[in-house]
Amino acid sequence: MLGAGYGLIERAAIALEGERIAWVGEEAELPVEFAGAERVDGQGGVVTPALIDCHTHVVHGGQRAREFEMRLEGASYEQIARAGGGIVSTVAATRDAEFDDLLARALTRVDALIAEGIAVIEVKSGYGLDLETELKMLRVARALGEDRPVRIVTTFLGAHAVPKGMQADAYIDEVCIPALEAAHAEGLVDAVDGFCEGIAFDTVQIGRVFDRARALGLPVKLHAEQLSNIGGTKLAADYGALSADHVEYATDADAHALAASGSVAVLLPGAFYTLHETRKPPIAAFRKHGVPMAVATDWNPGSSPMGSLLLAMNMACTLFALTPAEALAGTTRDAARALGLEDRGVIAPGKRADLAIWDISDPAELSYGIGINPLRTRIYGGRP
Amino acid sequence: MLGAGYGLIERAAIALEGERIAWVGEEAELPVEFAGAERVDGQGGVVTPALIDCHTHVVHGGQRAREFEMRLEGASYEQIARAGGGIVSTVAATRDAEFDDLLARALTRVDALIAEGIAVIEVKSGYGLDLETELKMLRVARALGEDRPVRIVTTFLGAHAVPKGMQADAYIDEVCIPALEAAHAEGLVDAVDGFCEGIAFDTVQIGRVFDRARALGLPVKLHAEQLSNIGGTKLAADYGALSADHVEYATDADAHALAASGSVAVLLPGAFYTLHETRKPPIAAFRKHGVPMAVATDWNPGSSPMGSLLLAMNMACTLFALTPAEALAGTTRDAARALGLEDRGVIAPGKRADLAIWDISDPAELSYGIGINPLRTRIYGGRP
Ligand SMILES: [Zn+2]
Ligand SMILES: [Zn+2]
Repeated sequence: MLGAGYGLIERAAIALEGERIAWVGEEAELPVEFAGAERVDGQGGVVTPALIDCHTHVVHGGQRAREFEMRLEGASYEQIARAGGGIVSTVAATRDAEFDDLLARALTRVDALIAEGIAVIEVKSGYGLDLETELKMLRVARALGEDRPVRIVTTFLGAHAVPKGMQADAYIDEVCIPALEAAHAEGLVDAVDGFCEGIAFDTVQIGRVFDRARALGLPVKLHAEQLSNIGGTKLAADYGALSADHVEYATDADAHALAASGSVAVLLPGAFYTLHETRKPPIAAFRKHGVPMAVATDWNPGSSPMGSLLLAMNMACTLFALTPAEALAGTTRDAARALGLEDRGVIAPGKRADLAIWDISDPAELSYGIGINPLRTRIYGGRP
Repeated sequence: MLGAGYGLIERAAIALEGERIAWVGEEAELPVEFAGAERVDGQGGVVTPALIDCHTHVVHGGQRAREFEMRLEGASYEQIARAGGGIVSTVAATRDAEFDDLLARALTRVDALIAEGIAVIEVKSGYGLDLETELKMLRVARALGEDRPVRIVTTFLGAHAVPKGMQADAYIDEVCIPALEAAHAEGLVDAVDGFCEGIAFDTVQIGRVFDRARALGLPVKLHAEQLSNIGGTKLAADYGALSADHVEYATDADAHALAASGSVAVLLPGAFYTLHETRKPPIAAFRKHGVPMAVATDWNPGSSPMGSLLLAMNMACTLFALTPAEALAGTTRDAARALGLEDRGVIAPGKRADLAIWDISDPAELSYGIGINPLRTRIYGGRP
């Protein structure tokens, strides 16, 4: 009585060769060439591609629990700002933090994600808002992938917020774009992102960052239409973005544009939940136009201190009415697309052998559980 | 810059003697008699009482992921019922399950809770709805406490649902009450619970169960006012219940009654979240009347497949606007009260040395994180 849409094979076998998947199908049809291979019994569990968290801010200094508490004690945003809260507190803590301290704290977050069967984590900069700290964040992100068996994809997010004491235009031209060029020269940038919103940057400013990304040969993605619609999704589509992220206020026309550009809509229910948002992303329009939907934690210290991608899957179903099959595609196949990774996120010959083996009998259980981790084993590049 | 309300002591020391706390205060004031004791350095972490999950259904057969999926695929409740879904599927799976299988599955749930620093778990029966299976569930619950270092509190919940093919009145008199007596005779019952709701039992039927509980000298508690107000909370207060649980539809008068009877309001945000409820428990009335508020997972396979008490704390804050200090009291001091346990849930001389040491700098972080477990060490009866 399983649901459709998973491409589930009962009594399956998967043959691995080195880091790659060589064959997948029903065990009874396993080609004779693999008959002598070392075997690992799945013991009736479910095997999926290893999960991919395609939108995180796990490198950051400090935490904002006191701000969370002040809000619940009735403080206004102004009072919180006066007490030093908000993104400026994270920027200050990230600027102050030593490389090793930033790395150690991010490693505990990466370890929590790995323990949920995750093999790829996207990590953004964006809490430096100066050249030096943006580079430090990206160097820490690269170090995460050296210290742990996980693929880190780095995203330059200099255009995250306007730092205190600067105008947005001056910041983009004098800090953000030079920082992008320096980070790229150091090989630290896999993609370029921005925050397109009334409280951050408009489409003209983001367009200047995207022009430079294009000139450098870097793919783009965008925090778009989270709190209002100011044209970010259309801009992202115009640049052939890998993804538009949040997209609560995206329209049917935006969905059409994303479909035409082959961009992924990245859904971030943790921020929706924390911010008590009511406007949901246009799931029906994404389905109608065939826009791939990914699901991610958006792990960040302000709007989504969420350390579980499985929980993001549950929230995508419960809050946005995704089906469990869509949620699983959104943390595997479509999350890989949102990062431009073509060799993972599905179980097929030639793909990387990044797999998760779960103590469940139905793949829908991954989305059904709330704060439950049924991972038995993660296989990364063919190795447990 | 910490919030008030925790009774937090900076640079504290806690002296243990055997299973008990002997002294707590500022380290500088540690009495000389403890100077020679073996020391464990808290390394700058935060120490709280070990957590208490005071409302769970962790003993149950089967899972209901397919039902979750069918709802998201647009199935009606009737279609789900025809496909064998709903509580009847859990009753059937629990009746069918062998003792050892029920125990093994419940142990994985208990282990997940222990890993979050939990030292007491309440476990209800209620998926048998026949004498034999109700007893089996409670025996499994008792076995959990023998197999793991955790205190299990058992609750007889025969009045959970009306089994197929029976009338509610006949079920109460011919099955539920005899099962309660048999379970009590076997020493399996620490408290007696019911589900007072239009779809389950009315106050007259629950009153008959409570009368028998009183005659047996057993404390009572009640699933009350979850989906409507039919007088369950007042009934519970009339019987001096340990707690009234869910209580979304409780009124100011209900809050007054709970305060007068010294009963705890147990908040279960996981079910509220999963069922897309909109009516929130009357937190302001509970505060006004001084009703203690506990927070629990309600871990069950239907309305709250939630395996994290820390997540329940976050949801109590985010969905019900509890403060983090209230949420922490709700999983320690007030959760102990909801179970009638007087010797735990606070850090004070004479109390049991059930402690949790967390890798955090501010106790508000326990509620602020979403799906994050910062536990460093759990101490149970004085032992790590
Ligand atoms: Zn983000
Ligand atoms: Zn319950």
